[in-house]
Amino acid sequence: MTEQKATNVHWHEGEVTRADRAKLLGHSGATIWFTGLSGSGKSTIAVALEKVLYGHGKLVYRLDGDNVRLGINKNLGFSAEDRAENIRRIGEIAKLFVDTGVIVLSSFVSPYRADRDLVRKLHEDAGMSFVEVYVDVPLEEAEKRDPKGLYKKARAGQLKNFTGIDDPYEAPLKPELVLNTDRMSLEDEVAALLDLLTRRGVLPA
Amino acid sequence: MTEQKATNVHWHEGEVTRADRAKLLGHSGATIWFTGLSGSGKSTIAVALEKVLYGHGKLVYRLDGDNVRLGINKNLGFSAEDRAENIRRIGEIAKLFVDTGVIVLSSFVSPYRADRDLVRKLHEDAGMSFVEVYVDVPLEEAEKRDPKGLYKKARAGQLKNFTGIDDPYEAPLKPELVLNTDRMSLEDEVAALLDLLTRRGVLPA
Repeated sequence: MTEQKATNVHWHEGEVTRADRAKLLGHSGATIWFTGLSGSGKSTIAVALEKVLYGHGKLVYRLDGDNVRLGINKNLGFSAEDRAENIRRIGEIAKLFVDTGVIVLSSFVSPYRADRDLVRKLHEDAGMSFVEVYVDVPLEEAEKRDPKGLYKKARAGQLKNFTGIDDPYEAPLKPELVLNTDRMSLEDEVAALLDLLTRRGVLPA
Repeated sequence: MTEQKATNVHWHEGEVTRADRAKLLGHSGATIWFTGLSGSGKSTIAVALEKVLYGHGKLVYRLDGDNVRLGINKNLGFSAEDRAENIRRIGEIAKLFVDTGVIVLSSFVSPYRADRDLVRKLHEDAGMSFVEVYVDVPLEEAEKRDPKGLYKKARAGQLKNFTGIDDPYEAPLKPELVLNTDRMSLEDEVAALLDLLTRRGVLPA
């Protein structure tokens, strides 16, 4: 657990509540958490799902590994400690968004099980929906795709602590959904997600 | 400037844009940044403004010093360095919210001019509205109110680096609005804010 440094702090309940904001938006917030190797297809799926949810009138926002690392987490690298802090901060941000009523699509490698479980706990303890989606491809397939040329750099030793090469990926034990992007079409992946979100009450039946 | 540690990261433009989200909500996002001494009345004003904006159908969310320090910034204390990082992170979070279309009300002591100016720059460089509101009371008045008993603790040496006692407060040089909460009623303060937000296009004329 991250140590709480500031004392003398107390949770302030606003006079406008989470329920009020959900009423305004016509829906509650939720975090859809995509995890998987670099090149597994997380961002591609998130972009496609974002479009569909927006088409359903949902306020949806993507948090993306690359985007977040250019902003709030620009002072974090790829050591195990920095990776943990990266995911912790993203989890806390996602929680603020869900409290606001936003459907968050987060796509981060997020390789460590303990880090993802912490984010799940943060949400569930606050009565918030958290949906973990494992975007599963064999390493060979992700490496063959190598959309950003990162595997090539990692194999050449130019990138250290690269997940799948010299840093582990710990697959989810009980994700809400597994998408095998080497065998499914993007259309079928989105359909599986919409079905799941309907069953979870994020989308109307 | 905070050093950028991760390389190989690039900004991903989503297919659903900031403009699309503003269309869905019927308004754009903006950050209203309240700054001032502990006990100056920042949170009281933010809570009152939140209620009015919600009544106007705006999706509004309060980021509060205490709340944020229990979550994303729980690993930060009150040294100058930690204060700077506290405000930097809050500024980046506010920016993500504004990108989503949310009107953010942030109430933090945020005592250092350079930190607030960085947050302003983050917003303005991205074409986002940033409104700085200086909640100005004499130190003696804030200390007399002492709603959380913090001044008393600071005077007794039980709290270190307390703004106004043994840490400086740098007043804004060009805030968009100054509220003298020792001489104005809460009603008049909210009226001044609504007038400002109307002139800035955040609320309809």
